[in-house]
Amino acid sequence: MNAMKKRICILGSTGSVGKNALKVAKSLGSRLEVCALAAKSSGTLLLRQAKEFGVKEIAIADKEEARVLSKRVAGKMRIFAGKEGIVHLAACSKADIVLMAISGAGSVRSTYAAVSAGKDIALASKEALVAAGRIITETAKRKGARVLPVDSEHCAIHQCIEGRGRSDVKKLIITATGGPFLDLPRAQLKYIKPEDALKHPKWRMGKKISIDSATMINKGLEVIEASWLFGVDVKDIEVLIHPEAIVHSMVEFIDGSVIAQLGITDMRLPIQYALTYPRRYDSILKKLDLADIKQLTFRKPDRKKFPLLGLSYEAGVKGGSSGCALSAANEACVNAFLAGEINFGDISRIVEKVMSRHRVIKRPDLRQIEEISRWAVDEVKKCY
Amino acid sequence: MNAMKKRICILGSTGSVGKNALKVAKSLGSRLEVCALAAKSSGTLLLRQAKEFGVKEIAIADKEEARVLSKRVAGKMRIFAGKEGIVHLAACSKADIVLMAISGAGSVRSTYAAVSAGKDIALASKEALVAAGRIITETAKRKGARVLPVDSEHCAIHQCIEGRGRSDVKKLIITATGGPFLDLPRAQLKYIKPEDALKHPKWRMGKKISIDSATMINKGLEVIEASWLFGVDVKDIEVLIHPEAIVHSMVEFIDGSVIAQLGITDMRLPIQYALTYPRRYDSILKKLDLADIKQLTFRKPDRKKFPLLGLSYEAGVKGGSSGCALSAANEACVNAFLAGEINFGDISRIVEKVMSRHRVIKRPDLRQIEEISRWAVDEVKKCY
Repeated sequence: MNAMKKRICILGSTGSVGKNALKVAKSLGSRLEVCALAAKSSGTLLLRQAKEFGVKEIAIADKEEARVLSKRVAGKMRIFAGKEGIVHLAACSKADIVLMAISGAGSVRSTYAAVSAGKDIALASKEALVAAGRIITETAKRKGARVLPVDSEHCAIHQCIEGRGRSDVKKLIITATGGPFLDLPRAQLKYIKPEDALKHPKWRMGKKISIDSATMINKGLEVIEASWLFGVDVKDIEVLIHPEAIVHSMVEFIDGSVIAQLGITDMRLPIQYALTYPRRYDSILKKLDLADIKQLTFRKPDRKKFPLLGLSYEAGVKGGSSGCALSAANEACVNAFLAGEINFGDISRIVEKVMSRHRVIKRPDLRQIEEISRWAVDEVKKCY
Repeated sequence: MNAMKKRICILGSTGSVGKNALKVAKSLGSRLEVCALAAKSSGTLLLRQAKEFGVKEIAIADKEEARVLSKRVAGKMRIFAGKEGIVHLAACSKADIVLMAISGAGSVRSTYAAVSAGKDIALASKEALVAAGRIITETAKRKGARVLPVDSEHCAIHQCIEGRGRSDVKKLIITATGGPFLDLPRAQLKYIKPEDALKHPKWRMGKKISIDSATMINKGLEVIEASWLFGVDVKDIEVLIHPEAIVHSMVEFIDGSVIAQLGITDMRLPIQYALTYPRRYDSILKKLDLADIKQLTFRKPDRKKFPLLGLSYEAGVKGGSSGCALSAANEACVNAFLAGEINFGDISRIVEKVMSRHRVIKRPDLRQIEEISRWAVDEVKKCY
């Protein structure tokens, strides 16, 4: 691997994180080489991206799209089809680092494949660690692969913790904007429509993560993810509401000193950090100006209004397959809500019900994780 | 040196920083051993401290006090007298680290003596680096001595920067409470009395530093000090008003990411950090609770109202002996103000006048630094 140039593979290149990663790659010029791309179904966009960056290997989950693309490129690119095509690309491209920007349970298998092949991961899909944290982190360690977070919160913690002794860490403090309903009375939550929930006050993100942010399970999943990434017990991870989204997260050390990472709310910053780590490069983005922002506010989250937060802590404490069941049940509920099949308040109600029925497996393997995911999705359907 | 136990010498043990350092030493028990103490003139307190910590070597600047003490201890302790006694103790005690908590120009000679002897320095006296930054940092480097800051701002920057590549640093951001007169109209500054200026809103400190905080030259001196400590150009060091004094300072990296250090306003935190570096230990102090503090505010400093800030930047840019002249002229003005000989507004007026008369020496030696200090004090007297 050339220390000056990293080769990257982007899984989920047509989504929000993927597009931003390509902007980062473009701005960094010859310091990053995009060598493989994969998407779920947006074949035309995927092809355009591949041509722009001179990429010769692509994968697309939709097999019909794969057939169409194959005809269009006529042997000038290698195209891998289906979910297995994406998993293959995760492990077998010539990339040094794989940006995992596929949302939901679909990210588990590819993440595992990449770390098994000893590739570093820039992880944007929090579900992978929530569902399969032990397997992925243990495999990564064994294979010498680094798991670098792309989520702004975890990227912040990574920056705060880097180069310091882990035994000096007392507590992680994950900040939360509180989502679009922070100041909405609890009683009104049930009337929320998908279009309201998709309007995030600070970050422009994909649909799944926007809804997760509105229910605040997003923070719960982040707590579990942080626990795996940094080896910190969930009970030593705190969620703090910070609507301005300038302090991206913090670490409290045993002597009471707190180190925080701040920045403008642009996901290209954490993406660039993860892709170029351990180097930093100039960024073309505008710089943080605190005198211009004037004030930063903080408060405790309302656990009653956002029950999925507490439920996530419970899952984190139980461990084993709990995270997997939580993540899969939530994903199914979010899809049902976006499809207009259930209302906003049903999300937490149903997830809670599914979790109460879940029998925790202590050290699930990858097959069991996939089974539990399917089970949770089926259970969700029984609840509405 | 035993990695588990550090031996410390405290110069200025009867002042505000010194007393707090002894509290830290007490709370850390066997992990720190106080082996030498020095004070200006408070002999009785010095003796009590020495007895409490089982210290066998003390120094006192006041020679008459030294004679009195010698009779009282009757050979049970070694007592060094005069400024030269303090300088001797700085270099010759069996300490691993010397806490330099003597305020003002008096700290230069002892700091130089300690680093020349290869001893690490925990530096609370910013005047030493402002006046003799080049000599002290170059000597420390040559002798393998570390200069660790105790000022909360520099300690914050040290924590933010530690373990990261210096070439990744874009800018240092030093926070400032703005002192007791932050919101006072400029026209009223001239009516200020010493007792008003000594009331700092956030920190309980010695007299000299409290007045410096009220004129905001404190921040100017900190900019010059930071420049020497971290090898950053003064034009890349910014001062940002932050009245809550929770964010102790920040570092902006080239990619736009900002790392900040936060904590409660208790000087025992940075003292402990410097004395135990690179280890951290639990602290008995209360922890930072941002949800309880609720908000942090930031604004640009008012350069017109606090002209000594701009004057410090000018001195920093000119370099050479400018910092020495600035620091000495200011110290003389502060003493005159505290003695009721000049009014508050005269401080900046006189310092500016003295600076305009100063002929900069590019690389002054220690003798020249002392000459310039004396010259500046004499010049101040001519101005009132």
